[in-house]
Amino acid sequence: MSFRFQIEARDDKARAGRLFTPHGEVQTPVFMPVGTVATVKGVPQDTLEELGVQILLNNTYHLYLRPGVEMVRQLGGVQKFMSWDHPILTDSGGFQVFSLSDLRKVTEEGVTFRSHLDGSSHFFSPESATAAQIGLGADIIMAFDECTEHPAEYARTRASMEMTLRWAARSKKYFEEHKQEVPWFSGGLKSAGDFVEGLNDTAKAVPLQSERQGLNGKADAVPIQGEGQTQTLFGILQGGMFPDLRRESAQRTVELDFPGYAIGGLSVGEPRPMTHEMVNAAIRFLPEDKPRYLMGVGTPEEIVHYVAQGVDMMDCVLPTRAARHGLLFTSEGRITIKNARYASDESPLDPNCGCKVCARYSRAYLRHLYASNELLAQVLNTIHNLAYYLDTMRRVRQSIELGEFASFLSGFRAPHRASQSAEGSCNSGSSES
Amino acid sequence: MSFRFQIEARDDKARAGRLFTPHGEVQTPVFMPVGTVATVKGVPQDTLEELGVQILLNNTYHLYLRPGVEMVRQLGGVQKFMSWDHPILTDSGGFQVFSLSDLRKVTEEGVTFRSHLDGSSHFFSPESATAAQIGLGADIIMAFDECTEHPAEYARTRASMEMTLRWAARSKKYFEEHKQEVPWFSGGLKSAGDFVEGLNDTAKAVPLQSERQGLNGKADAVPIQGEGQTQTLFGILQGGMFPDLRRESAQRTVELDFPGYAIGGLSVGEPRPMTHEMVNAAIRFLPEDKPRYLMGVGTPEEIVHYVAQGVDMMDCVLPTRAARHGLLFTSEGRITIKNARYASDESPLDPNCGCKVCARYSRAYLRHLYASNELLAQVLNTIHNLAYYLDTMRRVRQSIELGEFASFLSGFRAPHRASQSAEGSCNSGSSES
Repeated sequence: MSFRFQIEARDDKARAGRLFTPHGEVQTPVFMPVGTVATVKGVPQDTLEELGVQILLNNTYHLYLRPGVEMVRQLGGVQKFMSWDHPILTDSGGFQVFSLSDLRKVTEEGVTFRSHLDGSSHFFSPESATAAQIGLGADIIMAFDECTEHPAEYARTRASMEMTLRWAARSKKYFEEHKQEVPWFSGGLKSAGDFVEGLNDTAKAVPLQSERQGLNGKADAVPIQGEGQTQTLFGILQGGMFPDLRRESAQRTVELDFPGYAIGGLSVGEPRPMTHEMVNAAIRFLPEDKPRYLMGVGTPEEIVHYVAQGVDMMDCVLPTRAARHGLLFTSEGRITIKNARYASDESPLDPNCGCKVCARYSRAYLRHLYASNELLAQVLNTIHNLAYYLDTMRRVRQSIELGEFASFLSGFRAPHRASQSAEGSCNSGSSES
Repeated sequence: MSFRFQIEARDDKARAGRLFTPHGEVQTPVFMPVGTVATVKGVPQDTLEELGVQILLNNTYHLYLRPGVEMVRQLGGVQKFMSWDHPILTDSGGFQVFSLSDLRKVTEEGVTFRSHLDGSSHFFSPESATAAQIGLGADIIMAFDECTEHPAEYARTRASMEMTLRWAARSKKYFEEHKQEVPWFSGGLKSAGDFVEGLNDTAKAVPLQSERQGLNGKADAVPIQGEGQTQTLFGILQGGMFPDLRRESAQRTVELDFPGYAIGGLSVGEPRPMTHEMVNAAIRFLPEDKPRYLMGVGTPEEIVHYVAQGVDMMDCVLPTRAARHGLLFTSEGRITIKNARYASDESPLDPNCGCKVCARYSRAYLRHLYASNELLAQVLNTIHNLAYYLDTMRRVRQSIELGEFASFLSGFRAPHRASQSAEGSCNSGSSES
């Protein structure tokens, strides 16, 4: 068994659970930082581990273009490539094709698009996008979908949803036929040297922890043992901003029987109350025992409220991208660190945060780094914002386990305050650029 | 006593010693990474500590312009400002004024210059540059000098050297009269809140280690106790490319009696054999019992050979700047990481390096990060290059202690190989831009 999800506590609709993947466990609800091209911008992997990051999102579209799927496959898959011996999820590439590339042409077969890097022409179909994700080797991969534009008419939205359903079936079929081609299939996590002829075994980098200790060396891991481990393919719902299409997309995707379901096509410019309505319209038709992944959200206030709707997994560029632009999330609200008012402020960024940035540096120093356009500003700001998100999710999970989530939620800043500003927008299937 | 230097071992002209400063000890010979505006670009301070960085160089010119001397002084000095509870050295600002600013006008009184940031007009004299350094509060500060341009005629070089001597005397006079104004003078390392009215004590950042433990909490520290600690002012030699002027500059600066001497005005475009000749011409006239600081050098091969000439301290932007441009120093030679040959190279950057970059990442991944223009490339490359420099200096020191420096030196790559290329150039009094 290569994937399992268990629910360990519930509080109303919110759930606390655990994902088991070939590269380790993930406690849910979980926020997945975005590491577009196999890096969370500016943050070394050991710092991500110190922060308690459990699972990263990588973008298939970006890795497909650079360094290329075959290169990552030869190097043992994306976990080994980036030396991240923990779970990784890749998106389907669908959103980036629709949002980043030029001259895309969509047919029933797939999407022809031009690279945003060099204008070269490429084609993604459900089959080829799934093949790319198998080559990259993330633990969880996504069916190829069409992210319906917003706004869109009902008929157009239905047609797009129908195509996504057909593409989901094709993605699943291809995956089932080819899932053994994942770089680490045979015997679990092996060095690329075991698969690719001509590589010098003595030239290998330091082995991953899982190679040194054997898979599932941790005492609390549920066994996912032996040879023949594969990835897990999630389906993606669409349906635009129409509750009945959201319901139908959920029901018919569930009929295709995936081990997990993502809600896509939201956070694409619609007002936040509509996002919540669409999540609600879809999530009630998803099976209780499968993980639910809401793609591309959101502010700290929003993600807490999506958990209350029953969401288990989320990703967003917001904490990392905002950090690089000097917008910092704290327990006392947002801080725009470039403001002159912080120039002589000796206090830590967030007095209630235990991250290594707040433990060591003053607002005055962080303001100076940002005002001086220093690299370290981006590094430290990103570390803090991720710490804030991850700490929020830890507190969310704990409150669910204690049956105190309702009171936690009421004490949290209302999401509508964030929804008033552009900062809250975080595109579905997001990637860092 | 605020400063002391002791020599602990000698091997021919090379010396292994120890500097004692108000913010801690420094084992020599030492390489000082450049942290221009109170940050080593892209590297958090805890990583610098992990690397074993003992002392940083900050640039007075840059900090004077941004965030400003008064701001740093109010915040307790540069150590507290950047949360670096270890020694710091600031340069005099002289080199940056001559190399970075526009429309400078030099008179006997000082230098009028325009900021490279906004064109605003400023004036540095020996007095005002020393005042700026007292306000910044580094442990070791430098007399204001004129860095003679290269090439320069004999008469011009002599005149410049004479002015630097007069400026050295003025710098020293000002320093002696004002050294008690250093931000941490009273009672050693105190929070700025003790000095500046109107600051809220409750808003202080986490106290520095020295505040928590008391100064000299380390068992092996030689006591520098009590109230009234001050900085230490070093003199700077000039003399261009004329051995007799180098000798005269050394002798007459020594007559002014500084606790340490820097050799300035080298690595300004001259061929490397000439640099060595000028170091040799000057250093023999410096007192044995005082530290010697060769400013703005050099490649790994060069710094080892300067130690052989009797140099105790060096700084250079080369490891950090080269790292950001993808040039990496390894025990097997230089690596230009963007080269396609590394795209599928699973081996570590340097198989003989124990740094956290070499322990975790492959050349293929580092090449991908660099080719993708990712922030993490600059961060990881910088960490490795600093590790290589610092490890080199540790091995140098150990070989001196063991009386094996000559054999270490002969096994090290010859410096002339580096001198053939532009990469070896590292300007005196250097700063990162």
